[in-house]
Amino acid sequence: MPAQDARTVAGLMAEADLQGSDGHGVIRLPQYVKRIRAGGINLHPDIRVVNERAGMALLDGDNAMGHLVMKRAAELAVEKARVAGVAWVGAQWSNHAGPASLYARMALAHDMIGLYFAVGNANHLPPWGGLDMLLSTNPIAAAFPAHEEPPVVLDMATTVAAYGKVKAKAARGEMMPEGWMIDREGRPLTDPRRANEGFLLPIGGYKGYGLALVVGLLAGTLNGAAMGKDVIDFNHDAASATNTGQAIVAIDPAAFGDVVQFKAAVDALIRDLRASERMPGVDRIRIPGEQSHARSVEQRKEGIAIAASLMQTLDRLAEELEIPPLRTN
Amino acid sequence: MPAQDARTVAGLMAEADLQGSDGHGVIRLPQYVKRIRAGGINLHPDIRVVNERAGMALLDGDNAMGHLVMKRAAELAVEKARVAGVAWVGAQWSNHAGPASLYARMALAHDMIGLYFAVGNANHLPPWGGLDMLLSTNPIAAAFPAHEEPPVVLDMATTVAAYGKVKAKAARGEMMPEGWMIDREGRPLTDPRRANEGFLLPIGGYKGYGLALVVGLLAGTLNGAAMGKDVIDFNHDAASATNTGQAIVAIDPAAFGDVVQFKAAVDALIRDLRASERMPGVDRIRIPGEQSHARSVEQRKEGIAIAASLMQTLDRLAEELEIPPLRTN
Repeated sequence: MPAQDARTVAGLMAEADLQGSDGHGVIRLPQYVKRIRAGGINLHPDIRVVNERAGMALLDGDNAMGHLVMKRAAELAVEKARVAGVAWVGAQWSNHAGPASLYARMALAHDMIGLYFAVGNANHLPPWGGLDMLLSTNPIAAAFPAHEEPPVVLDMATTVAAYGKVKAKAARGEMMPEGWMIDREGRPLTDPRRANEGFLLPIGGYKGYGLALVVGLLAGTLNGAAMGKDVIDFNHDAASATNTGQAIVAIDPAAFGDVVQFKAAVDALIRDLRASERMPGVDRIRIPGEQSHARSVEQRKEGIAIAASLMQTLDRLAEELEIPPLRTN
Repeated sequence: MPAQDARTVAGLMAEADLQGSDGHGVIRLPQYVKRIRAGGINLHPDIRVVNERAGMALLDGDNAMGHLVMKRAAELAVEKARVAGVAWVGAQWSNHAGPASLYARMALAHDMIGLYFAVGNANHLPPWGGLDMLLSTNPIAAAFPAHEEPPVVLDMATTVAAYGKVKAKAARGEMMPEGWMIDREGRPLTDPRRANEGFLLPIGGYKGYGLALVVGLLAGTLNGAAMGKDVIDFNHDAASATNTGQAIVAIDPAAFGDVVQFKAAVDALIRDLRASERMPGVDRIRIPGEQSHARSVEQRKEGIAIAASLMQTLDRLAEELEIPPLRTN
């Protein structure tokens, strides 16, 4: 792909690893390469606005790498929110873009709040009480700027565990805790090697089913993107365009009142939560985003730790592509 | 209060009962009356826009009944979304407004999507791992118009059970299932008479804690409304202004593409979900909002069923206020 686009995607993948979202960073490279080679990604896309009003825009990602589409969506949302106060930018014909929080966070540099919704790229969740996997782990992310404290950043799948966590358990030969998955009779499924005999559980039972559906309607259906049975399982089909749907909302606190006052109120809330009396055995109250922030600061200094097995995979990929491997020093 | 306002509030309370949200309907009247008599509600409010841009507005509810503030907010959001495509309307100095879905639903008549976020009026949730109840059950509602099918309407607290359900269990002398509440040592609390010795559990553990926090930041902090330790417990303080924060988002699918096509896609998704193969013992796959829609249709015909005990309470209240009681026929 054009060097500038490759730099953008690589930068965002590294950003994912930096903040500890290592299931969505460079580990995805072999899958992306496979998709590119199968013709499943448009390397010379024309990412364009197809519909626009003061408070919204709809992007056609033209089957580009999702990172490119979502970066553009976040920039456009911020730009429009600066005028409209709040702006919602949806995308159709996008692709997997890495961790949700990456794009919600983009609003922070502009002292704005960012929200992000996406349709996941494989269905692992049936409707509540059902067996047909018609829904994905459709994630939600939200990022709030604080004044002196690190930002509040939530990034969560609407299932108890994301499917990547199941794959990680399988890779390590570990069992899953009860509550992550059930089998087709509704019994707890704890052996990750049997993952294809069951499905993920939504958070809060029927509530998480409802949330996954709502996120899918907002990020998929509203944008004319894939949702429900139209979702392409990107683990098993590398060639078809996924028509992935995502949405970003940028909210400018300056439109609501004084920004510094808002950020100071976020600080105060963070401090109150952190100072809460703790349950026995709990060493620290955590604020969403606290750990990924600390990881990001640490790894930006020390470098990103990459597991030996991943490094081997990447070296093999480099060899296959006849490009120099990553330097390990 | 002015007759027109009383009619509006009464209409919305009846609407809540109609759709089966009977914990948020006329059952709240004694509490509202108590608050009005204690001077905790402004009966002649000047509900006004304090900040406005193309894609947003911030309302000062002037401590009015929340129903009046939120109805105004929903109308304004729809009006602005017709131009801007998407509009976000927040409110400060509002009050309890009944069920969240009531306001998300208001967008439906205009073929729009409605989202609603609110800060609950009593803190029953500590941060994850903590003991200080700094968060409420902060609800989320979302309503999507369909073409031939009833709309998809999600209305959920970010805790496993709303506090009203705990009170209902106590009133009926029943025990709660494990998973609703824990005590201060983290042990399951199942006796609702001991509810004040513990607290509610968020959905999905730390994820629900994150969601409750995010909803509170959007509906409370962003609007300059109460959040965290500033939340007034309306069960124990009827006189202080609660400065309740709520937010409504109206999204016009017509700005994104063809509305009929969108609504037909919602229909298709609903039908696919409903037609899913079912787990053993499950008689029907439910779509969020399906039951409240059916209840609403049924009760609009048959009248609203009111429990004898509630009728007695209302009769006593009428006597106390020297007004005619509800006719029961």
